[in-house]
Amino acid sequence: MSRIVCGVDLGGTKISTGLVTEDGKVINSIKIPTLAAEGPEAVIDRIIKSVNDVLEMSGLKLEDIAGIGIGSPGPLDAEKGVIITTPNLPGWNNLPLVEKVKEKLNTNVKLDNDANAAAYGEYIFGEGRGIKNFMYITVSTGIGGGVVLNGKLLHGANSNAAEIGHMTIDFNGPRCNCGNLGCFEAFASGTGLARFANETVNKGRESLMKELAGSNPIKAEQIFEAARKGDALALELIEKEGFYLGVGLANLMVVYNPEKIAIGGGVSKQWDMFYDNMIKTAKERVLRPNFEVCSVVPAKLGDNIGVLGAAAIALEL
Amino acid sequence: MSRIVCGVDLGGTKISTGLVTEDGKVINSIKIPTLAAEGPEAVIDRIIKSVNDVLEMSGLKLEDIAGIGIGSPGPLDAEKGVIITTPNLPGWNNLPLVEKVKEKLNTNVKLDNDANAAAYGEYIFGEGRGIKNFMYITVSTGIGGGVVLNGKLLHGANSNAAEIGHMTIDFNGPRCNCGNLGCFEAFASGTGLARFANETVNKGRESLMKELAGSNPIKAEQIFEAARKGDALALELIEKEGFYLGVGLANLMVVYNPEKIAIGGGVSKQWDMFYDNMIKTAKERVLRPNFEVCSVVPAKLGDNIGVLGAAAIALEL
Repeated sequence: MSRIVCGVDLGGTKISTGLVTEDGKVINSIKIPTLAAEGPEAVIDRIIKSVNDVLEMSGLKLEDIAGIGIGSPGPLDAEKGVIITTPNLPGWNNLPLVEKVKEKLNTNVKLDNDANAAAYGEYIFGEGRGIKNFMYITVSTGIGGGVVLNGKLLHGANSNAAEIGHMTIDFNGPRCNCGNLGCFEAFASGTGLARFANETVNKGRESLMKELAGSNPIKAEQIFEAARKGDALALELIEKEGFYLGVGLANLMVVYNPEKIAIGGGVSKQWDMFYDNMIKTAKERVLRPNFEVCSVVPAKLGDNIGVLGAAAIALEL
Repeated sequence: MSRIVCGVDLGGTKISTGLVTEDGKVINSIKIPTLAAEGPEAVIDRIIKSVNDVLEMSGLKLEDIAGIGIGSPGPLDAEKGVIITTPNLPGWNNLPLVEKVKEKLNTNVKLDNDANAAAYGEYIFGEGRGIKNFMYITVSTGIGGGVVLNGKLLHGANSNAAEIGHMTIDFNGPRCNCGNLGCFEAFASGTGLARFANETVNKGRESLMKELAGSNPIKAEQIFEAARKGDALALELIEKEGFYLGVGLANLMVVYNPEKIAIGGGVSKQWDMFYDNMIKTAKERVLRPNFEVCSVVPAKLGDNIGVLGAAAIALEL
């Protein structure tokens, strides 16, 4: 029988917990509310309960699994298993999550940030299978990612490596949530794309996006929707989105020199709309050997990536 | 007795070869012309002779050393020990240098590109000693570097990782030698700095730099010289140099999350002129945990870094 691990995807609003085989099959999974406002101890109790529930559903015991992996928002210290602080989980300050879970569940427990977990999940179960130098990036509200170098997840000095959304790609660019100017994320995330749309429409330019949004601000999905219907401004914005993604990819290719980059997250569901321009831009901007060795593909793992990624972290044990 | 290795720093104009102890003492070293125009076989013969000469000078035999490390310009394949091509060594195409040296000298031989070798040298013998996640960058004509992650030199898929001079920091920026627009190197290298100086002076702005350069284009050293004498334009240019270096450092801190970055090369000899502004810029632009964990220092190894770096590569055996 193949090894089974448990993956816990801890988020600000929900906890997803699943049992996963080492070949990436989800045996059973459940999703419960985090109720973060109740504080860390209550949330940890719910994590424990979710693990016990999913074991019971599957007719398995704690001894039947090789360990538990937890993916969480950061910043955190993966090596020590400590959550340093996180905006979505109030009261979690220097919280030794791994130790606390181990007190109640006597098994191996590992923690990593959600972007690293997703990257490792895609590496073990998805597009990264068998690729020694692999990168996963997620483009949705923000841009995050993780990188596997020579088969090992890169953590850096304090688990903050590959914060790729915050690479500067234009030091005169727009202000990012992090405080910096011209981050990759400020240009190419869904939020960045929507900001450009709203700025342009607010200046009086006509667009179908305005009708789609009604009295609300335009959202990234509506830009793609309008573009598919031939809206000129939406098409221009998506042309730029492909360009910004290409600039970011070029930087990732020169710094990490991966063999493959997989892109996940909301924007990646519109792959056909930006792929050509993204690759053309990257090709123009990167050293030839770095470009030629690297393929760029949509991520394989879909909505399950949180649980599968956390499970993959447990397999790293 | 401590282990002894041989380092060969192969350049387009000269070959430097030295015997180095594992604590970084150079026992003896020699420097001979490369005479690259004579082609690979003649150059390889000179490498062999330089190794034999330095052994003889030191009263040692091939059996007394643990191996030979060679640092060379790239692109090359470090794993296979093959030089793919290099502008400064005409006729070197897919040349199996390691195999060829081994045919004549029966010992361990390792090859890496010169920037990686310098980084590993600084890691083993200089500022990187005992630092698990360490980065070395050299700022002179161009900008190069190497990164040690979790104690291992990063190579990537085809030995082209950490080509950090070619990260885009402003996608609208000036054209780089590599063809891209707005590379870190195009802004912050000695060449970039001199280009900004010449452009401004050619537009008619008065500066002491003009007198220092006479009828020739202004060089980076002359900008520092003029700035030390209080020249307003030179001081402005060096203010910008600090800013560009700070933007680049911020990117390196977010992608690699190192504990220390050591800066070598010509520009680093003017450390006091740009350090404060460089660090202020990096601090403003990078996520706090990445900034706080990372110190930035001038490299410790001086002109010997070529031989010491190549020797360090041999110690990696």
